[in-house]
Amino acid sequence: MAVQMELRRIVVNELQDGHTLLLKEVDGDRCFSMVVGLFEVRSIDFRVRKEQSPRPLTHDLLNLVIEALGGELQDILISEMREQTYFARVRIRKDGEIIEVDSRPSDAIALAVTAQVPIYASEDVIEEASGA
Amino acid sequence: MAVQMELRRIVVNELQDGHTLLLKEVDGDRCFSMVVGLFEVRSIDFRVRKEQSPRPLTHDLLNLVIEALGGELQDILISEMREQTYFARVRIRKDGEIIEVDSRPSDAIALAVTAQVPIYASEDVIEEASGA
Repeated sequence: MAVQMELRRIVVNELQDGHTLLLKEVDGDRCFSMVVGLFEVRSIDFRVRKEQSPRPLTHDLLNLVIEALGGELQDILISEMREQTYFARVRIRKDGEIIEVDSRPSDAIALAVTAQVPIYASEDVIEEASGA
Repeated sequence: MAVQMELRRIVVNELQDGHTLLLKEVDGDRCFSMVVGLFEVRSIDFRVRKEQSPRPLTHDLLNLVIEALGGELQDILISEMREQTYFARVRIRKDGEIIEVDSRPSDAIALAVTAQVPIYASEDVIEEASGA
């Protein structure tokens, strides 16, 4: 089962690598965090602040490509955790079908905040990551 | 007219922002350079060195999405320069047609080196940028 999550906190560490995203259940209190790269955290932070770029940034380009090929981003799913690594899927609706593409969660979340679609996590990930 | 280019040099400036790509004509000597961001230059450099990542990086994801939606990256074109800003197009073949998507050149070049497709520049861009 998938649970809708919201980005609760973005911690950009300017002095060293190791930036953190905190995700919290929309309809509950469980939360978990993940460490992401500087580019991804900046990209997510930029979107959350609703800043505008005169030219398409990388995750804008990704969304433009999806639309140009007749797809529509439906949502993203943080699907599993293996050996302390999170895995995600970008879920695209096209011709009435859902096409899933393997992704790092940081790219998936950056894409979700760019295209303003929901972020889900599997129940397994939440249980394992939150210790709930 | 479009001219095939090759990435001739990548200059990563670790101390300050302002990293440079040098592109040179494949069948000639004209060349021009462009300033790109740290993420993009690192992403391009990583590809050129043929380093491997255990998980799809952002431009891998872009290529995976193109393929999942039934497209195939054909090439990229640095199409014009306006007010010292380069513009590019990612050109995707799908169902016998070419779909063009507006892109920053840095993303387009990162995608081209990821998917190993040709990089083109329009004659206008080369003339204006190289001073030839």
